[in-house]
Amino acid sequence: MGKKRTAKYKKHIGKAPGTLIYTGEKNSQQLFIESFDYNPDGFTEKELKNIEDVFGYKTSESITWININGLNHIEAIESAGAHYGLHPLILEDIVNTSQRPKIDEYEDYLFLSLKMLHLDANENVIIEQVSFVMGDRYVLTFQEAEGDVFDNVRERIRSGKGRIRGMGADYLLYALVDAIVDHYYVISEMLGNKIEDIEDTLFEGNVEDSMSIQILMLKKELLKVRRAIFPLREIISRIEKSESTLIDKKSIQFYRDVYDHVIQLSDNIDIFREMIWSLMDMYMTTISNRMNEVMKVLTIIATIFIPLTFIAGIYGMNFDHMPELHLKYGYYIVWIVMVAVFIAMVVYFKRKKWL
Amino acid sequence: MGKKRTAKYKKHIGKAPGTLIYTGEKNSQQLFIESFDYNPDGFTEKELKNIEDVFGYKTSESITWININGLNHIEAIESAGAHYGLHPLILEDIVNTSQRPKIDEYEDYLFLSLKMLHLDANENVIIEQVSFVMGDRYVLTFQEAEGDVFDNVRERIRSGKGRIRGMGADYLLYALVDAIVDHYYVISEMLGNKIEDIEDTLFEGNVEDSMSIQILMLKKELLKVRRAIFPLREIISRIEKSESTLIDKKSIQFYRDVYDHVIQLSDNIDIFREMIWSLMDMYMTTISNRMNEVMKVLTIIATIFIPLTFIAGIYGMNFDHMPELHLKYGYYIVWIVMVAVFIAMVVYFKRKKWL
Amino acid sequence: MGKKRTAKYKKHIGKAPGTLIYTGEKNSQQLFIESFDYNPDGFTEKELKNIEDVFGYKTSESITWININGLNHIEAIESAGAHYGLHPLILEDIVNTSQRPKIDEYEDYLFLSLKMLHLDANENVIIEQVSFVMGDRYVLTFQEAEGDVFDNVRERIRSGKGRIRGMGADYLLYALVDAIVDHYYVISEMLGNKIEDIEDTLFEGNVEDSMSIQILMLKKELLKVRRAIFPLREIISRIEKSESTLIDKKSIQFYRDVYDHVIQLSDNIDIFREMIWSLMDMYMTTISNRMNEVMKVLTIIATIFIPLTFIAGIYGMNFDHMPELHLKYGYYIVWIVMVAVFIAMVVYFKRKKWL
Amino acid sequence: MGKKRTAKYKKHIGKAPGTLIYTGEKNSQQLFIESFDYNPDGFTEKELKNIEDVFGYKTSESITWININGLNHIEAIESAGAHYGLHPLILEDIVNTSQRPKIDEYEDYLFLSLKMLHLDANENVIIEQVSFVMGDRYVLTFQEAEGDVFDNVRERIRSGKGRIRGMGADYLLYALVDAIVDHYYVISEMLGNKIEDIEDTLFEGNVEDSMSIQILMLKKELLKVRRAIFPLREIISRIEKSESTLIDKKSIQFYRDVYDHVIQLSDNIDIFREMIWSLMDMYMTTISNRMNEVMKVLTIIATIFIPLTFIAGIYGMNFDHMPELHLKYGYYIVWIVMVAVFIAMVVYFKRKKWL
Amino acid sequence: MGKKRTAKYKKHIGKAPGTLIYTGEKNSQQLFIESFDYNPDGFTEKELKNIEDVFGYKTSESITWININGLNHIEAIESAGAHYGLHPLILEDIVNTSQRPKIDEYEDYLFLSLKMLHLDANENVIIEQVSFVMGDRYVLTFQEAEGDVFDNVRERIRSGKGRIRGMGADYLLYALVDAIVDHYYVISEMLGNKIEDIEDTLFEGNVEDSMSIQILMLKKELLKVRRAIFPLREIISRIEKSESTLIDKKSIQFYRDVYDHVIQLSDNIDIFREMIWSLMDMYMTTISNRMNEVMKVLTIIATIFIPLTFIAGIYGMNFDHMPELHLKYGYYIVWIVMVAVFIAMVVYFKRKKWL
Repeated sequence: MGKKRTAKYKKHIGKAPGTLIYTGEKNSQQLFIESFDYNPDGFTEKELKNIEDVFGYKTSESITWININGLNHIEAIESAGAHYGLHPLILEDIVNTSQRPKIDEYEDYLFLSLKMLHLDANENVIIEQVSFVMGDRYVLTFQEAEGDVFDNVRERIRSGKGRIRGMGADYLLYALVDAIVDHYYVISEMLGNKIEDIEDTLFEGNVEDSMSIQILMLKKELLKVRRAIFPLREIISRIEKSESTLIDKKSIQFYRDVYDHVIQLSDNIDIFREMIWSLMDMYMTTISNRMNEVMKVLTIIATIFIPLTFIAGIYGMNFDHMPELHLKYGYYIVWIVMVAVFIAMVVYFKRKKWL
Repeated sequence: MGKKRTAKYKKHIGKAPGTLIYTGEKNSQQLFIESFDYNPDGFTEKELKNIEDVFGYKTSESITWININGLNHIEAIESAGAHYGLHPLILEDIVNTSQRPKIDEYEDYLFLSLKMLHLDANENVIIEQVSFVMGDRYVLTFQEAEGDVFDNVRERIRSGKGRIRGMGADYLLYALVDAIVDHYYVISEMLGNKIEDIEDTLFEGNVEDSMSIQILMLKKELLKVRRAIFPLREIISRIEKSESTLIDKKSIQFYRDVYDHVIQLSDNIDIFREMIWSLMDMYMTTISNRMNEVMKVLTIIATIFIPLTFIAGIYGMNFDHMPELHLKYGYYIVWIVMVAVFIAMVVYFKRKKWL
Repeated sequence: MGKKRTAKYKKHIGKAPGTLIYTGEKNSQQLFIESFDYNPDGFTEKELKNIEDVFGYKTSESITWININGLNHIEAIESAGAHYGLHPLILEDIVNTSQRPKIDEYEDYLFLSLKMLHLDANENVIIEQVSFVMGDRYVLTFQEAEGDVFDNVRERIRSGKGRIRGMGADYLLYALVDAIVDHYYVISEMLGNKIEDIEDTLFEGNVEDSMSIQILMLKKELLKVRRAIFPLREIISRIEKSESTLIDKKSIQFYRDVYDHVIQLSDNIDIFREMIWSLMDMYMTTISNRMNEVMKVLTIIATIFIPLTFIAGIYGMNFDHMPELHLKYGYYIVWIVMVAVFIAMVVYFKRKKWL
Repeated sequence: MGKKRTAKYKKHIGKAPGTLIYTGEKNSQQLFIESFDYNPDGFTEKELKNIEDVFGYKTSESITWININGLNHIEAIESAGAHYGLHPLILEDIVNTSQRPKIDEYEDYLFLSLKMLHLDANENVIIEQVSFVMGDRYVLTFQEAEGDVFDNVRERIRSGKGRIRGMGADYLLYALVDAIVDHYYVISEMLGNKIEDIEDTLFEGNVEDSMSIQILMLKKELLKVRRAIFPLREIISRIEKSESTLIDKKSIQFYRDVYDHVIQLSDNIDIFREMIWSLMDMYMTTISNRMNEVMKVLTIIATIFIPLTFIAGIYGMNFDHMPELHLKYGYYIVWIVMVAVFIAMVVYFKRKKWL
Repeated sequence: MGKKRTAKYKKHIGKAPGTLIYTGEKNSQQLFIESFDYNPDGFTEKELKNIEDVFGYKTSESITWININGLNHIEAIESAGAHYGLHPLILEDIVNTSQRPKIDEYEDYLFLSLKMLHLDANENVIIEQVSFVMGDRYVLTFQEAEGDVFDNVRERIRSGKGRIRGMGADYLLYALVDAIVDHYYVISEMLGNKIEDIEDTLFEGNVEDSMSIQILMLKKELLKVRRAIFPLREIISRIEKSESTLIDKKSIQFYRDVYDHVIQLSDNIDIFREMIWSLMDMYMTTISNRMNEVMKVLTIIATIFIPLTFIAGIYGMNFDHMPELHLKYGYYIVWIVMVAVFIAMVVYFKRKKWL
């Protein structure tokens, strides 16, 4: 089992740096390219099958967004990289889906690699890597597969509402990053809800054995999400402080807004983390309380009946000379003694507040 | 349940940045606006119903405080924003009540978003967002609902006591922020008291099953308060170090004072946090001690009577040839043996300090 | 109870900043003022009743130390503040005894607020706030009540030994702060001793139920002390790096020495903190070990006698046809079987190392 | 045992700094030297037996990589050090295999000491120290023994593929460091797999006593790996920011890529660490749950049968006058009572959800 | 007991700063002074009885090392201090043996106070304070008592091997500090061995009650060592970055080497710390596992025999009408039932994996 799991990184070992290897699992993904070319006056939207079809946009005066799905098509990505003059290490990062979120500033373009988070039908967190290359008048996005969180950006380009059509590539990049960060809130709320669900269960006094598994799963999920979100703090802050001419002064304020969101998300995650540890603690004390209760029941029953059984045992002995046995009211006296012991015990436990 | 909870953030997704959506729950709040216009010589106080009524103050030479309650009235806020030339992202932050405390410096105004904390009748912490926009000669405040902690500021403006009427908008902002921070102390003391109450209960040796719930609730409350207070450290410190001309040199000292208070509050919260963890620990050991005591009682009773019952059992056997049974004093000898075993056991437990 | 406790901060709410409210508990303290005026050639020591009596010293060429006891005398403090030109916020800080240790640099004077720690008769830590105002040629100190740790400074001024009479107000301030920090060592050692006492008790294997209370009390005391000492690191370091002309170059070395002491004290407190956590851990394991021992005794007794009692029970049955009962040596054989079972059990427990 | 273990460092004590002492365990390693000399047009690969054979390369115009295996050959290393003008402390660091990863910049060369991690047949982490000296046109590598992770670099030099033959010594150093860091991923994945294996075992509810040993071993392994990887963050970052002329501007981008990898590895290790602590927690709760279950079984059996046995004991007594014994249906009535008690108990436990 | 312990610091309170008080325990130590005066050509070694004998070396052109043992001889230290122009606070630090490691830079000399660690016969860590004053051409060392770790430095001066005789006072200081740091490795290894010994014991499944004491003692020892080593990081780094002319450029590299060692030691101590916490955890789980096992044995025996004893009890009753008693094979049938119950129980426990 361990052996199978290590396969992923072994692909890479023994290759020269800059060698493109797709490390994801969507190897049968069709190459799917869509392009948006727009200016304040209008827009063109296209679906393309070949990477060569997009090369014409490089020199257009309007803003172009080219969205490439299918990182398994190495040769297409290499060809796009060559056309846009991208550094080989960037291409390597694009297809390496286990990449940590990062930013690289080059003279002519900015490279950004983020994690897009969404939920599947069972509320599991799905992580997909999205890479961005922003040049003077274009933004390239690279995704593993179709399906993303950018529909509202597409809609805003199409409708011409908002300020998107009137601004540059830096604002387009912002809009896309903002769409990703907005979705983080959905994940964050889902995690918060899961924590509260466990909390509610514990508050109602229900303890299930599976609860420690649930808590551990939640911790793992939180770690996964934290890993996607935390590096963003530094990344967005570097865009904000960038002296690159690619980022217009007017856009900085928008990036600052995204930065505030990322900080808030990081805060949330730290709080969730603390709450999960508290839940674990509470789960532990609840188990201890249960054990305590079990022990009390056992102790009460045993300490009441063991002495009584002893008394009964005494008069079950077969000695020839046991004067009590021949007393007329011996049997009744024993009963009285037993009831007295019983009552004494119950009073004792009442005082100890065990009953 | 989980589904219902995520509704809040979903409102936002798919909207262009700068779209105003009120995320709070007070949707039936009436729009309520009050204005104070003052200078060292006098003041005017008004209650207004329409946002347009306040626009005249923008150009007045005197200092104006306009307090707008009712964030559900999006169009009024948009109209005020347009009149005062506020950035769309600021308007978005004003109505987004899940906003983290933040500061944004613009050329003409300063934007501040804080959390106002107060206690309801059951000593639960109520969090309400208050946003401030401070311009050259005005301060706008935006609240979700009527009812706030600013009454003493109003009184000082009315009475003309203190230095408030003689100073600028930066001092007014300080006075309002100071009023909010002052109220944090009430919350802080309430938390401290709750911790001490639990501590006292534990010190008296009372352990209730509900205590772990109480402790967990306290932790959550503390996290909530921390989240409101901690960002203030950076925010106030940024005002202090601001090079904006909006903040007068003379006012800096006052902001430094607020800063000291915020640091002290942060210290308190860190200390509370540590104390709560200690309480949890102590609760755990108290449970363990309890269990220990239960076990001891069981063990003492069982280990004393089990051997005695065995002896009784021996002489309850029906063998034809059991010479002891026919001894004249057999029964009495058995009693002596039993009492001897009993005493030996008691001595043993005394030595172990279990009795 | 909670209600009563919040009273303290409520005093403050609704007051303008700069309003002086004494928040301590020594309301019946008499105003008591003492002054030392000295130069290399001599000194004058006086006890004064009225604050006005000290005003003459302001312009004297010699160094003056004025020590004011009784923060409940608001009007005297206000009058001194007015005479020495102190900022209203400083006066507020002087009388607010729940103030965090702080430093404020003004053009003409330096304001310092520290906590003076000493032990009462029961080795409880007593915290008293001391505020310092250091001007060019004077130091004012403000204390809640008479009784302080400055006796050695007084003695050195009187005797003229050491360098104190030959140096400026900055050295006097150092001498006073140093006296306070020196006393922290007494507290630190007392805490260390208390920790070692608990440790010794645990090492001897004595566990008392009250120990968790003791440990918790110690933690609280440590938190209290930490709160007084930790802010000093930054405060003294700011004096050291101050560019104020009030601090002479020659004195910096002395402040650096105090700084080293404060760092060492902080180290100690961190170490104490870690040790207390270790003690709690050890207390927990000791309880667990105890429980284990109790369980073992129960288990040994029960598992030895329960099977034996069963055997006795068998031959206590009243069946008509039980051939063993009529064997001549049946009774003795049963005894042999029982002894054999007993020995087997004991051997088993020996092997398990439970005996 | 303790005595034997301290032997290693004792070797060093009492020696002058700069004295070369090999602290590893491979004392019988043969000296083995290989050299690669290349330029864009071709390459020469040699295996050498004497250190003197490599000295000729120092002045060659082409790039030279000399790989020296066998740190026990102190005199050879000293002679190489003298020839290349290396500082004595560097030679000491090369042969001291317990060296922490470090970087030292000298005017003419850069010294780098890293840990090479690989797995042995049993998936144990093997740590070997590799030292690098990079000069203007050469890279020296020093290893304890033959066998390393550099085969792909050798292959790339031989084949002339990629950019390695066309670039300088700084790129060669990068390629070697990158090969080492690439192998860290294998270790990281192996650790991740081991954690998941334990997690899976716990999820299936299997608890073995050895599990705490496994978890502790994993923690130790993680600490070992962390110690090798964490210092690299600072080291690579110092190369990146170095102003040395030895590092060409074009190579910086490659080092930045390695830096990103190291950061990602550090993140992974932090996450693993947190997960191991969680596992320990879960292991603890699983043990507690087990104990709980054991206790329940005991309690159920004991509390059901102890009262029943008591009833039987009553009617085993030998009193002369026990009227129930002579009732015609006495025996059956007792049975009915017993069954009733039994059912009552079972219902009680069902309600408590113990059954 | 607490009272006695506080005595140490009380000595200090009430004294003027700069008052020399020896706070150690070696009050009967004889004053013992040794001097080394050397240059590349030769050396003079002397043992002196009076402090005045060393004053002549101050002006010598050669490098002088004066080693003074016996901090209880206050007057000798004061006289040396006066002769070498040392600041009174430095003299105070020299004789205050509870001093935290520190560095102070003066114009003419450098003051350094370190902790020398060595092991006594029982492998306990002994801490002794060593102070260094380095001037232009001399190094003074102050120790509490004879016996130190500097023998190899003495030997190197005598033999003239290595570079020591050819370099300045800064190199001599380095050599002495390096000797101290080298000895820290012995302590570090000893601690590592102790941890591994406990670990081995736990791995073998042996749990002793005293183990928690051992672990706690180890923690305390680690804290003690950490306190001696951690401040060195900053101290050595300050020497490295010092702009004092007392430290020659050529020596910096050597101090950097010591710095690397100190960092490695700090790393080790952090790792030891984490391992000790893990050990405590493992000890706890081992205790829990033990308890679990004890409980299982009890439960198995009790749950098997309690029902059987009940059955025997039934047929021990003395009812007149108990038809089973008169069955011919009644006794044998009861035996069969009992064996069946026994087997059923055993199978049940096997399935639960308790057997």
